Amino acid sequence: MITADPTIGDLTTTVNALWLLVAAALVLIMTPGVAFFYGGMVKARSVVSMMMMSFGAMGLVGVLWVIYGYGLAFGTVAGNTSNDLIPGVLGNPSGQFLLGDLVGAPDGSGANLYGLAFAGFQATFAIITVALISGAIADRAKFGSWMLFAFLWVTIVYFPVAHWVFNFTADPTTGAATDGGWIVFNMGVNDFAGGTAVHINAGAAGLALALVLGKRIGFQKGIQKPHNVPLTLLGAALLWFGWFGFNAGSAAAVNGTAAIAWINTLAAPAAAILGWLIVEKFKDGKPTSIGAASGAVAGLVAITPACNILTPGWGMVLGAVTGAICCLAIELKFKLGFDDSLDVVGIHLVGGIIGTLYIGIFGTGIGLIDRIGNGDSNPLSQLGAQAVGAGSVLVFSFVIAWLLGTAIQKTIGFRISTEDEVAGVDTVVHGEESYVLDPA
Amino acid sequence: MITADPTIGDLTTTVNALWLLVAAALVLIMTPGVAFFYGGMVKARSVVSMMMMSFGAMGLVGVLWVIYGYGLAFGTVAGNTSNDLIPGVLGNPSGQFLLGDLVGAPDGSGANLYGLAFAGFQATFAIITVALISGAIADRAKFGSWMLFAFLWVTIVYFPVAHWVFNFTADPTTGAATDGGWIVFNMGVNDFAGGTAVHINAGAAGLALALVLGKRIGFQKGIQKPHNVPLTLLGAALLWFGWFGFNAGSAAAVNGTAAIAWINTLAAPAAAILGWLIVEKFKDGKPTSIGAASGAVAGLVAITPACNILTPGWGMVLGAVTGAICCLAIELKFKLGFDDSLDVVGIHLVGGIIGTLYIGIFGTGIGLIDRIGNGDSNPLSQLGAQAVGAGSVLVFSFVIAWLLGTAIQKTIGFRISTEDEVAGVDTVVHGEESYVLDPA
Amino acid sequence: MITADPTIGDLTTTVNALWLLVAAALVLIMTPGVAFFYGGMVKARSVVSMMMMSFGAMGLVGVLWVIYGYGLAFGTVAGNTSNDLIPGVLGNPSGQFLLGDLVGAPDGSGANLYGLAFAGFQATFAIITVALISGAIADRAKFGSWMLFAFLWVTIVYFPVAHWVFNFTADPTTGAATDGGWIVFNMGVNDFAGGTAVHINAGAAGLALALVLGKRIGFQKGIQKPHNVPLTLLGAALLWFGWFGFNAGSAAAVNGTAAIAWINTLAAPAAAILGWLIVEKFKDGKPTSIGAASGAVAGLVAITPACNILTPGWGMVLGAVTGAICCLAIELKFKLGFDDSLDVVGIHLVGGIIGTLYIGIFGTGIGLIDRIGNGDSNPLSQLGAQAVGAGSVLVFSFVIAWLLGTAIQKTIGFRISTEDEVAGVDTVVHGEESYVLDPA
Repeated sequence: MITADPTIGDLTTTVNALWLLVAAALVLIMTPGVAFFYGGMVKARSVVSMMMMSFGAMGLVGVLWVIYGYGLAFGTVAGNTSNDLIPGVLGNPSGQFLLGDLVGAPDGSGANLYGLAFAGFQATFAIITVALISGAIADRAKFGSWMLFAFLWVTIVYFPVAHWVFNFTADPTTGAATDGGWIVFNMGVNDFAGGTAVHINAGAAGLALALVLGKRIGFQKGIQKPHNVPLTLLGAALLWFGWFGFNAGSAAAVNGTAAIAWINTLAAPAAAILGWLIVEKFKDGKPTSIGAASGAVAGLVAITPACNILTPGWGMVLGAVTGAICCLAIELKFKLGFDDSLDVVGIHLVGGIIGTLYIGIFGTGIGLIDRIGNGDSNPLSQLGAQAVGAGSVLVFSFVIAWLLGTAIQKTIGFRISTEDEVAGVDTVVHGEESYVLDPA
Repeated sequence: MITADPTIGDLTTTVNALWLLVAAALVLIMTPGVAFFYGGMVKARSVVSMMMMSFGAMGLVGVLWVIYGYGLAFGTVAGNTSNDLIPGVLGNPSGQFLLGDLVGAPDGSGANLYGLAFAGFQATFAIITVALISGAIADRAKFGSWMLFAFLWVTIVYFPVAHWVFNFTADPTTGAATDGGWIVFNMGVNDFAGGTAVHINAGAAGLALALVLGKRIGFQKGIQKPHNVPLTLLGAALLWFGWFGFNAGSAAAVNGTAAIAWINTLAAPAAAILGWLIVEKFKDGKPTSIGAASGAVAGLVAITPACNILTPGWGMVLGAVTGAICCLAIELKFKLGFDDSLDVVGIHLVGGIIGTLYIGIFGTGIGLIDRIGNGDSNPLSQLGAQAVGAGSVLVFSFVIAWLLGTAIQKTIGFRISTEDEVAGVDTVVHGEESYVLDPA
Repeated sequence: MITADPTIGDLTTTVNALWLLVAAALVLIMTPGVAFFYGGMVKARSVVSMMMMSFGAMGLVGVLWVIYGYGLAFGTVAGNTSNDLIPGVLGNPSGQFLLGDLVGAPDGSGANLYGLAFAGFQATFAIITVALISGAIADRAKFGSWMLFAFLWVTIVYFPVAHWVFNFTADPTTGAATDGGWIVFNMGVNDFAGGTAVHINAGAAGLALALVLGKRIGFQKGIQKPHNVPLTLLGAALLWFGWFGFNAGSAAAVNGTAAIAWINTLAAPAAAILGWLIVEKFKDGKPTSIGAASGAVAGLVAITPACNILTPGWGMVLGAVTGAICCLAIELKFKLGFDDSLDVVGIHLVGGIIGTLYIGIFGTGIGLIDRIGNGDSNPLSQLGAQAVGAGSVLVFSFVIAWLLGTAIQKTIGFRISTEDEVAGVDTVVHGEESYVLDPA
């Protein structure tokens, strides 16, 4: 218990850091949530492989983040671009190797409480973004190749993109970026909690890997039934739970913006469940629990970039629309013939794009509607910025992921052999059976 | 990070709001907890249906709360009954449609941090109360009819009852209500976190629906074995975890009352586990894990209204007694012949009543024991108030739920057909199989 | 909402108490995490028994802690040893029976917010320490005998050991103990969050019980396949999630030490996953998901005593080394022939010892490396203290657990009969089947 009185400003920072510490733990459990959400949807003989891609990401990205990831993304304190390795593009990790400058003396006396809490919070974003990609390559990836891909992609793509989007100095009054990564500062994109940096980023990489690895044996609509529905619903529940930390924690302070983000994180996925189920009912005749879980996730994805700048009413409209569209979008893979096995594209890429563009139209004070009302001479400017920001990350992530995936496939191989796929990836790659339920 | 110094009063409010934001996330995960607690106990071919009633409630009630639910329950700020639509009975939603007055400008500058955090916190109460009801109608409900019922019941019953119990102005010194809903203010009932508003309310509605829908095919003690015990224990674990937010968060501040509530939320269910298992051991010869999980939930239910006003010692007595009684009470449905499938009545209604009345006897400063000690001329007054408050909600909820259920059953139908029930509700209503575990 | 302004010192204490309330809820869900982590690894016909040992501990230890456990461990406020029942060895429970002095009047006006939050936080440590032991006696323990053992062991061993390690007065400037239990104060051992008090303690007791109960029928490497891998990974996920509360909450304040502890709780298990998987790959040819989960837990165990005093870089080295060593250490039971069924020894005892001794070498400011650098005349002193502290608890816990286990085995019996073990402990002891998945 601290007995000496801090100043009220110090204590305010302490309260904000506490929120980040709690929010970071909430976000950390989202990655096991991804493991279970995906794991329940694959065949019983692929669930170990599916979950291992998420747990492997927790191990690998957790370590890389501490060593140099934070430095590349946030090494230049508060988005002081003049100190960037490449201004606006890549942070300056000198001094932040192994979080050195934040740690000070590790007895806590010199430690930067707020800085470390923020570094921990952002670590969990890097981890989950990598884990999300794995849903595109269910049933057929080598674990070692996945880990190599994760190492390269997070280094070349995620750490820089996090700098572009999340590293900035905020005007204390308006909250607008006064310096920082090129997407958030130069473009003025509103990507509050990572619609672009996390979901479009992961979705585009997933699409690339789905193309590189090719279709699963027997890929066809309706063939792949989820092996464990409660496991998928558990995953969705952990995701929603942790997403309150993800979105409301992205305010990086306990303030009105955090509260707005919290409410939208409740309202948008709630509406998205309804949107998805209604479309599903009309399309297939029956509302499914996998649909409810997917709808909730789609709504959460869409509200992620926008949760700070929408009234709950508009947040719910966004959720409902995204739930409905994503319910249709997951059919695309069958029409276009790419095996995005667990709908990383249909949910994270599509949902991320919807939410990002929606801000340009309905974002309070910055969207098309408000700008027309204000007689703005260029009411489409925010929408254009949002589109360019999202498109840039989409293309960058897709191209690098495709190159990395192809290089791995052509060298050590990324996809397991046909015989191994028939035998089941869990046994072949991990030597494990997911369930041994017979009483013998 | 906020840099400008707030006043210490503002910062105190910020700290309280932070607690509400965290507690609200904790309560939100309780509803998936209900889905798993119930889902594990039904047959493997009903688990999708069971879980969908909870996840459907998250979607529907989340949306309704934001649109008008908060307005009906808390629209009249701080229980200023003179502004109520019906004084003490129904709040005034004007101004709070879509949480308008709390949101202000959604960039957070005008947002009411504390107000939004409280609105989010209370949203999760509305959601779980509806989800709890579903345990009474396992294996046999149409999903669309359930959703219609949920919409009507939460609107007609829950939102007003939340106003009666939870909306009040507290005396800053004593914490007593100086204005507000008729149960909390006029009656002076102590229902801290919702023994009446949540558990008796849901339990009575569950009883009504169990009667309306009738018994499952083959309803008989011992026939229905839980299909997945770990899933039920997971549900109980998430419930207990979230209940710390539910009870201690109901202080709506970080203070001694919150801490007392926290400790009681640990101690009472712990004692209830022991109470249940001991009775079970003597009654059936073997302590079961379903019993441990049910005991914990029963103890949590009973301590909910009372956790602010009992010493931990008396909290543990309440827990132990409730665990023991509920272990016996769940047999009632077989004796009386109503198929409250998963014991919403035996645990939530019975546990809620025990906890609510117990306050009138052992509540510190307000219960029978203390009043006799103080020479109070009317030592039974609190007990009477508790009984009237609980009875009122019980009757109101039961009658409306019975009317709504009957109307739905007679029009679009609430219960699935016998053939469909034999075939399994999951496949018929949702087109899903819960598990596909064979390696093929 | 508190309206009156507190002093800034009061508000600081309130913020610290809020952190403890949240952290305590996080730690509470770790015990179900243990239940699922262990439960997934046993046979399908032992999972109820396995989980019940954890849920039973929640019930029993929760109650005992409130009655007298807190009093024995922390009854002497702030480690004022002169008031101890036995100075430095056993606290003074008078006044803290049923948490009396902390509760004051239970309406919250006289309640000690911070004290109650700390009591709740520490309660969850007592619970999980007992639950951890159960992994050593899978498939073969009587539930009643387990509960009796738990009652005796927590009273005779855990409550005193918690006093030795966790009860002290800290120098406000340096954080060093200026009074308190003999291990933390007289020995000067650094056991921040309980490597000794929790993990070595539980591991030694587990070893004793494994020896007392003897080997399971058919005990042999590779025979016991986990029955439900996702359940074990869920357990590991809940453990990691809750461990942020366990470690960072042990700062008992929101400060730099808490933030360092948080980061290490991310970094060390992440590195340990990699360490375990690499060794497993070389040893057995395939990295397993059970290995990833076990590696994460091993890393968390090792960082527990050390998370306040290591830079994240050294934290990751500790994690990687522990992951690698524990991956080898779990083979010991087959070589030495004790059936520590789920590796309580191989992970918690070995991991706890590694972490505890590592501090003596690499602990910033107190370890061998720094002391040599500072020209300390006795650079091994901390390492020696760590070894004596760890060894004392190891021997004490082992001996008492062996005596208690043997006494129970020789009187009411601890191990079930061979026939019952073949039939399956779940049916025999609890009358429950864990899964009923056939569609009939």
